[in-house]
Amino acid sequence: MKTITADLILTGKYLLTMAPDQPPIEDGGIAIGGDTILAVGGGAELLARFPETRVIAEAHGLIMPGLVNVHTHAAMSLFRGLADDLPLMRWLHDTIFPLEATLTGEVVHLGTLLSICEMIKSGTTAFCDMYLFAGDVARAAEEAGIRAWVGEVLYDFPSPNYGALENGFTCMQDLFDRYRHHPLITVAASPHAVYTCSPDLLTRLGAMAWDERSLYVIHLSENEEEVRACLERYGRTPVEHLESLGLLGSRVVAGHCVMLTPSEIALLAKRGVKVAHCLESNLKLASGIAPVVQMLEAGICVGLGTDGSGSNNDVDLFGEMSTAAKLHKVDRMDPTVMSAATTLHAATLGGAKVLGAERLIGSLEPGKKADCIVLDLDQPHLTPLYHPTSHLVYAARGSDVIHSVINGRLVMRDRRLLTLDEPAILARAAAVGVGFRRGRSGN
Amino acid sequence: MKTITADLILTGKYLLTMAPDQPPIEDGGIAIGGDTILAVGGGAELLARFPETRVIAEAHGLIMPGLVNVHTHAAMSLFRGLADDLPLMRWLHDTIFPLEATLTGEVVHLGTLLSICEMIKSGTTAFCDMYLFAGDVARAAEEAGIRAWVGEVLYDFPSPNYGALENGFTCMQDLFDRYRHHPLITVAASPHAVYTCSPDLLTRLGAMAWDERSLYVIHLSENEEEVRACLERYGRTPVEHLESLGLLGSRVVAGHCVMLTPSEIALLAKRGVKVAHCLESNLKLASGIAPVVQMLEAGICVGLGTDGSGSNNDVDLFGEMSTAAKLHKVDRMDPTVMSAATTLHAATLGGAKVLGAERLIGSLEPGKKADCIVLDLDQPHLTPLYHPTSHLVYAARGSDVIHSVINGRLVMRDRRLLTLDEPAILARAAAVGVGFRRGRSGN
Repeated sequence: MKTITADLILTGKYLLTMAPDQPPIEDGGIAIGGDTILAVGGGAELLARFPETRVIAEAHGLIMPGLVNVHTHAAMSLFRGLADDLPLMRWLHDTIFPLEATLTGEVVHLGTLLSICEMIKSGTTAFCDMYLFAGDVARAAEEAGIRAWVGEVLYDFPSPNYGALENGFTCMQDLFDRYRHHPLITVAASPHAVYTCSPDLLTRLGAMAWDERSLYVIHLSENEEEVRACLERYGRTPVEHLESLGLLGSRVVAGHCVMLTPSEIALLAKRGVKVAHCLESNLKLASGIAPVVQMLEAGICVGLGTDGSGSNNDVDLFGEMSTAAKLHKVDRMDPTVMSAATTLHAATLGGAKVLGAERLIGSLEPGKKADCIVLDLDQPHLTPLYHPTSHLVYAARGSDVIHSVINGRLVMRDRRLLTLDEPAILARAAAVGVGFRRGRSGN
Repeated sequence: MKTITADLILTGKYLLTMAPDQPPIEDGGIAIGGDTILAVGGGAELLARFPETRVIAEAHGLIMPGLVNVHTHAAMSLFRGLADDLPLMRWLHDTIFPLEATLTGEVVHLGTLLSICEMIKSGTTAFCDMYLFAGDVARAAEEAGIRAWVGEVLYDFPSPNYGALENGFTCMQDLFDRYRHHPLITVAASPHAVYTCSPDLLTRLGAMAWDERSLYVIHLSENEEEVRACLERYGRTPVEHLESLGLLGSRVVAGHCVMLTPSEIALLAKRGVKVAHCLESNLKLASGIAPVVQMLEAGICVGLGTDGSGSNNDVDLFGEMSTAAKLHKVDRMDPTVMSAATTLHAATLGGAKVLGAERLIGSLEPGKKADCIVLDLDQPHLTPLYHPTSHLVYAARGSDVIHSVINGRLVMRDRRLLTLDEPAILARAAAVGVGFRRGRSGN
């Protein structure tokens, strides 16, 4: 029998595997070989079982799966704080659309790297992105060594990337072909929304997604105006519209889902549609509060997304967890709903399920890919510790994450990014920001 | 003419004074002499004006007033995460009250120190506390060198501190006498609430507050049950009840104020009552959403409070700002309300006004006390920077604070606490937590 050797062992005060019904393991650890988790359990036992392995031991550390951000537009980090406290349409038309029309692949690459710096430094190890210049988004993710689902956003009007819509399909096919067997990058069909995509676009991209067995990522029922416009144009709500086109299915990742009726929730559950809950963005844009408790009760799989930093204004899933766990309590006037455990599940294994990747990531179990993070518990806001899950949701911050491993590779150690040149990225992003500010003010 | 000498100069990329109508000053600084701000303005100018002064220069720093937490129960840090996701009354009766009955002054002192560690490390330089063993709370604040308003909570039933209510008044008078001229500690009358305090207690403490010209800090209209119970008992809402007792006035700091009618808002405004908005606690306990936008429109002065860590679960005002600015937008379905500037004001100068201390603290202006913090802007989630105020409210985290000065004294440098032995406090708090866990489970 061949001896299995490990490449890296992490040990800590607590190991939280997020495997179903698995309580936190005190003095736990994880052994990694290549890109894969070999074993989890007691730290001492792992050290004995895999001698002569590189060890990172954190006496005050909590080891857990990396967080999964199921909906973002990473490159919008460059627009963070450029304009706030505005109605959605004014924000889009006066600030975002004019700037997006000037974007280039290089700028999107830079903005994505900037968001990836922030994501890794706040515990995210996988994200699902929809944006322009998706090839450059993928390139940034590859360089960083972060797991990503990427899709070129398609809509009826010309794109600053591919020009006419017809080229958009070619662009998508190229992406599918290029990344079909990539260990970290997965391509997803990404129609923007029912109000920006014709039925023909939606169905044609649906056929492509079907052929490629890819996700179909779309903004859906984000706010009242979207529903009203869809009703006026098609006589159907956005959910009914996708249903009438035969597009609702288990590989659909529907972003937002703020405006849902009970019968729409039942329909999404029946079709196996997954939902990306982007609460902080929905709050900031005053879109509304998605009926997440009802969706979960109906059996819908819900993950957490940050949306882009232009409307959040960060990509920190720890903040998103804290807000979600608290807000749904008051929305339902019931402090028992959206418990810490439910919320943490949505940010880890639930998010993995949303992306159809629950056999790969989302929990720390032997055979899965090694995507995990370590938090430093030795801090005033995490002391005393009674229940790790409570602290992770209600008290921890992204800045508590000290190490990050993605696909078996250490990408952050002691908060220093190992795969990216953070100072250079920040300097270049600041320079781009100076240009954006000028562009906006007409100078 | 006597030459004025400074003791400390801070310079940074931005200075945000929070003085009315004062925009951020690029390459700004602040000069401090003793406990007082001598000058603010261009950093280079200050260096020339006050030569041979100790300088802390942060090329990527943002200097601003320390945050003011207008309502907390600091020692409840020891209960953080002990029990969550429960109805308020079950949480109180099964977990909090039994433990509070066992509290001692030493434990309250320790829990307060723990919260102060967290507060300083997340940018708070002043807090208003209501709890048991207030003398020990004050002692902790003195040791830490943090500015604090403290009050022994009085209610109709016996206290683990002073026993029978009569002793509570003596306890309060002793506190007033002891701290009357203290540079950092101010004593406040602190009746718990209308449902736990008889009219006699409320008015007698009101008379004491009047004599001492102190604040009168009370929980008011926190949830539906409080209003219902008050209506049943007195035939009046909590606000009407205080009004009927002649207790509403400009030195009242009313915590929560979730359940207010439009006419009650008008009455509070007319009486000059100040409001401590404790949003995250109200969300987590599913109490409701205080009508803060309406209160501000009515001219009520509103500050931000974290409430205790038992129901928040932290004392980080940066998180509180972010949640408040976003949540009120969706509550009003209007993305223009509770702007970043409005929210930041509530956490600084607005908070100072709530405590009647706007001539002392809350903004960085010559003659005021030197309570200020420095944030490190050189981070992915704060790059690029278009508007400092936006980043402070929507993207910054408590962990971005690197230095803190209170009353002219440097209490944190490079995130290291200078007045407290943080490792010893964490170790002792962890040990107390072990005991609490045992106590709760009956072992």
